[in-house]
Amino acid sequence: MNIYRIMRKVTLIAVFICSVTTLNAQEEVVGAIFKNALGSDVAYENLRILCETTEGRISGSPEAAAAVELTRQIMLGMDLDSVYLQEVMVPNWKRGEREIARIVSGHYGETELNVIALGLSVGTGADGVSAPVIEVGSVEELEELGEDAISGRIVFFNSEPDHGHYNTFDVYSDLVGMRFRGPAAAASYGAVAAIVRSATTAMHDHPHTGVTRYEAGGNNIPSVAISPVGAGVLSRQLVNDPGLRLYLRTTSYRLPDVLSYNVIGEIRGSVYPEQIITVGGHLDSWDNSPGAHDDGAGCMQSIDVLRIFLEEGIRPKRTVRAVMFMDEEISQRGGNKYADLAYINGEEHYFAIESDRGAFTPRGFSVDASVKNLEALQGLLPFFSPWGMHEIIAGGSGVDIAPLKNYYDMTLVGLLTDSQRYFDVHHSANDTFDQVNRREMQLGSAAMAAIIYLVDHLDLLEFSQ
Amino acid sequence: MNIYRIMRKVTLIAVFICSVTTLNAQEEVVGAIFKNALGSDVAYENLRILCETTEGRISGSPEAAAAVELTRQIMLGMDLDSVYLQEVMVPNWKRGEREIARIVSGHYGETELNVIALGLSVGTGADGVSAPVIEVGSVEELEELGEDAISGRIVFFNSEPDHGHYNTFDVYSDLVGMRFRGPAAAASYGAVAAIVRSATTAMHDHPHTGVTRYEAGGNNIPSVAISPVGAGVLSRQLVNDPGLRLYLRTTSYRLPDVLSYNVIGEIRGSVYPEQIITVGGHLDSWDNSPGAHDDGAGCMQSIDVLRIFLEEGIRPKRTVRAVMFMDEEISQRGGNKYADLAYINGEEHYFAIESDRGAFTPRGFSVDASVKNLEALQGLLPFFSPWGMHEIIAGGSGVDIAPLKNYYDMTLVGLLTDSQRYFDVHHSANDTFDQVNRREMQLGSAAMAAIIYLVDHLDLLEFSQ
Repeated sequence: MNIYRIMRKVTLIAVFICSVTTLNAQEEVVGAIFKNALGSDVAYENLRILCETTEGRISGSPEAAAAVELTRQIMLGMDLDSVYLQEVMVPNWKRGEREIARIVSGHYGETELNVIALGLSVGTGADGVSAPVIEVGSVEELEELGEDAISGRIVFFNSEPDHGHYNTFDVYSDLVGMRFRGPAAAASYGAVAAIVRSATTAMHDHPHTGVTRYEAGGNNIPSVAISPVGAGVLSRQLVNDPGLRLYLRTTSYRLPDVLSYNVIGEIRGSVYPEQIITVGGHLDSWDNSPGAHDDGAGCMQSIDVLRIFLEEGIRPKRTVRAVMFMDEEISQRGGNKYADLAYINGEEHYFAIESDRGAFTPRGFSVDASVKNLEALQGLLPFFSPWGMHEIIAGGSGVDIAPLKNYYDMTLVGLLTDSQRYFDVHHSANDTFDQVNRREMQLGSAAMAAIIYLVDHLDLLEFSQ
Repeated sequence: MNIYRIMRKVTLIAVFICSVTTLNAQEEVVGAIFKNALGSDVAYENLRILCETTEGRISGSPEAAAAVELTRQIMLGMDLDSVYLQEVMVPNWKRGEREIARIVSGHYGETELNVIALGLSVGTGADGVSAPVIEVGSVEELEELGEDAISGRIVFFNSEPDHGHYNTFDVYSDLVGMRFRGPAAAASYGAVAAIVRSATTAMHDHPHTGVTRYEAGGNNIPSVAISPVGAGVLSRQLVNDPGLRLYLRTTSYRLPDVLSYNVIGEIRGSVYPEQIITVGGHLDSWDNSPGAHDDGAGCMQSIDVLRIFLEEGIRPKRTVRAVMFMDEEISQRGGNKYADLAYINGEEHYFAIESDRGAFTPRGFSVDASVKNLEALQGLLPFFSPWGMHEIIAGGSGVDIAPLKNYYDMTLVGLLTDSQRYFDVHHSANDTFDQVNRREMQLGSAAMAAIIYLVDHLDLLEFSQ
C-alpha cells in the first residue's frame, strides 16, 4: 500500500469519525433540548399567568393589551439581545351582552339554546329578532332553495361532522365553510339572521365561535354559533313543528380599529445575524375563554425556545426571533404586518415555524417548502423519532407566518400535534389552562427548539430573497 | 411469444392483480374498522355507565361484583356466540376510614398532609402512630443507614421523578420500586410505618395509591402514599426541623379472599374455532376512583372489538374472546386463572392483546414474541400509519395476558398509547370519566380490532402449543 493510499484511507476514516461524532453531538444537543424542556415549568407557568390575567384577549381588547405587556415583560427578563414591539392596527369587535336564543313553538313551548355570536357579526338590536327557521345542510343548499324560501327567515346551518377522519382538522375543514361563508350567503338571499352548528368534534352544550366573512359591501346579518346539543334540539323540534319561531338577541358591534402590537424577542445570530429564523404563535384569543391552547400555549412555547437556547448555551448562527402575533382570529393583521415590515426593512428570512394546533403531544412537522427543502427536513426524522415524532409531511404551516411567502422563497413549518382533543376546546369557553398538560406542552417547545437548532446548525435549507 | 410465455405472463398479472386487490381489500377493512369505531359512542357510553355505577371497584368489593354483572349483561345483549364467567378467588383488602397524616413540629406547628394507604397495607389501629421521620431517596439507602437510624421511626421514601424520559412509563419504573419494596424493607429495619412519594409525573396535591409487596412471613407495617406537593412540604420541614414527628392513622385491613370472576364473551371462529385470540383489560380498579383509564376503558374497548367485528360483518377464522380480567391491581389472580384454565382445558392460544395503558391516542403495539412474529407484525405498519400509529416494537404486553406465556409459545401484544397524561391520573382520585376523550378511546378499540383482523385473516403468526 503506497503512502497516497494510506493517507487517503486515514482521511476517509477521519471524515467518518468526524461525521459520526458530529451526528452524535447533534443527537446529544437534541436530547439536551428535550430534557431541558421536560424539566422546566417556566413556559407552563407563564401560560397559567397569561390565562389568569388576560382571559378573553380578543384583538382590540384591554386584555390583549395586557397580554402584549405581559409577554414583553417576560422577554425583557430573559437576557435576550433585543425585545421590541411592532405596531399594527387591529379590528375592534365587541360581543356586547350575553346572547339569547329561544325557540318558541306551539308544540314544545319555549326552549333556551346556548349560542354565541360569530366574530364580526352585527347585533340584532336590543329588541332582538323573531322569525321562522329554515334548516340547510350546506351553503350550496341555499341556492337550490332560492330567495322565496329564505327571505325573512333565520337560516339554520346544520351538518353533522364526519367523525371518520383521523385528523380532526379534516373534520373541521368540512364544517368551517358554513361558518365562514354561510351567513353572508344567507344574507344575500334575504335571511334576517343565521345560526350555525358549532364546528367541533365534541357532543356537548358549549357553542364554539369563530370569525365569519362578509364581502365588502355585502349585507351583514346577525349570526351565531349554536352548541352541538342545541343544534340537535332545534333540528328535532323543526321536524315536528316546522312553523316554530326562533327569537335571537345579540348586541355585538364593531368600533374603529385600534393600535396594537406584535411582540418580538430575539437572540442575535453569531455567524449570519442578518438571516432570520422566526418561531411564533398568536397572542390574541377569542373573547369567551382564556385561550390556553389557542394560542397562549404557542406563544409561551415560542418564548421557551429562546429560554432553552440560552440555558443550553446554544448560540445560533442565525438570528432566532420569538414572535407573538396579534389578531390571528379576526383579520390576521399581525402576521401580514410582520411580513410587510420584513420586506420593507430588507430582512433576510431563512426559516419560520408556528405552533397553533394546541399544546398537545407533538407528532411531527407540516412543511410548506420546495421539494428539496422538504426532503432535507425529512432527513431529520431520526432525530425526532426517539421523541415520538414520526411525521414530516408537506402541508400548511401557520396562519401568522404564511404571509412571509408573499415576499420570500423560504421554508415554513407548522408544529403538528395530536389533533384528537383540539376541537373539543377550540373557540369555546372550554379552552382553559386545566386542559393543557404540562408535559405535552413542554414537548412542543422542545420540538421547535430542536428543529431550529438542526436547520441552523446544519445550514440545511436553500433559500433566496 | 409462445403460448407458454403468454400464459405465464397472464398468470403473473392475475397473481399481481389478486395480491393488490387483497391488499386493498385489507386496507379497506382496516379503514372500515376505524371509521366504525370513530362513529360509535357505544364503548364510551358503556365506560360512562361503568364509572358512574361501579366507582372504586377494587377486587372483592361490591362494586367489583356489580362491574362483573354489568359487563356480562352488556355482552349478553350483543348477539355473541357465548358469554360466561370464570371463577377466581380474589384478595379482599379494605381501606377503612379516610387516612390522617399530620406533621407535628415545634417549628411549624401542625400540618395536614394528603395521603392514601397503599394496597395490602395494615392499619395503624384506631389510635394511630406518632414517630420521628427519616427521609431516604431509595430502598438501597436504608441499608447504608442501618437499623439504629431506622428503628422506631417512620421512613419517608422521597425521590423526585426524572422528567427527562419521553415515555412516562420509564419515569414510573424509576419510582415504583420504592412503593413495591420500600415498606417491607423499612419494616425489616424496625420502622414503625412508611410514607412514600406518589409515583406520578404530576405536581399536585393528590396521592396515588398502588399495591405494596410483603415477603411471606415478613413484617407488615402501615404504609401510605403522599401527594407530590405533600412530599415537598414534609421534606422542607424536615430540613429545618429534623426532630418533627408525624402522626399517621390508617384503618385498613384484610378479610378472607372472596369469590369473583373473569367475564368473557366470544365470537366463535369460522375456520379454526379451537384457536383462541384474546383481547382484554382488567375490570378491577383502585378503590379511590372510577378507574376510567385504569382500566375501565380497556374493558370497554375489548368488548368494542367484538361489536366492530359483528357490525362490519367480519367473521374471524379463529375464536375471538373479550376478557375482563379480575384483580390486576392486587394479586393478578384473574390473569393467572385465565392462563391456568386455558392450559387445563387444552385450549390453543394464537394471539392475545391487552389495553391497560389508558385510553389515550394509540401510538402502536408493544410485542412480546419471537423475532419472526415481531417482524411479521412490523410488516403491518403500513396499515396503521394512516391512523397515526408508527411504533411496533419489542416490549411487554399486559399484566393480565402475560401468564399465558407460562404455557404457550405465542404472541402477546400491548396497545401502546400516548403516555404523557397517564400518570397524572393513574391510581389517583383523578382517574375519572371526564379525563377520557371519546375519539382517543375509539381509536384504541379500532387499533385492537384491526390488528386482530389482520393477524387472523393473514394467518400471520407462528405458534406452538
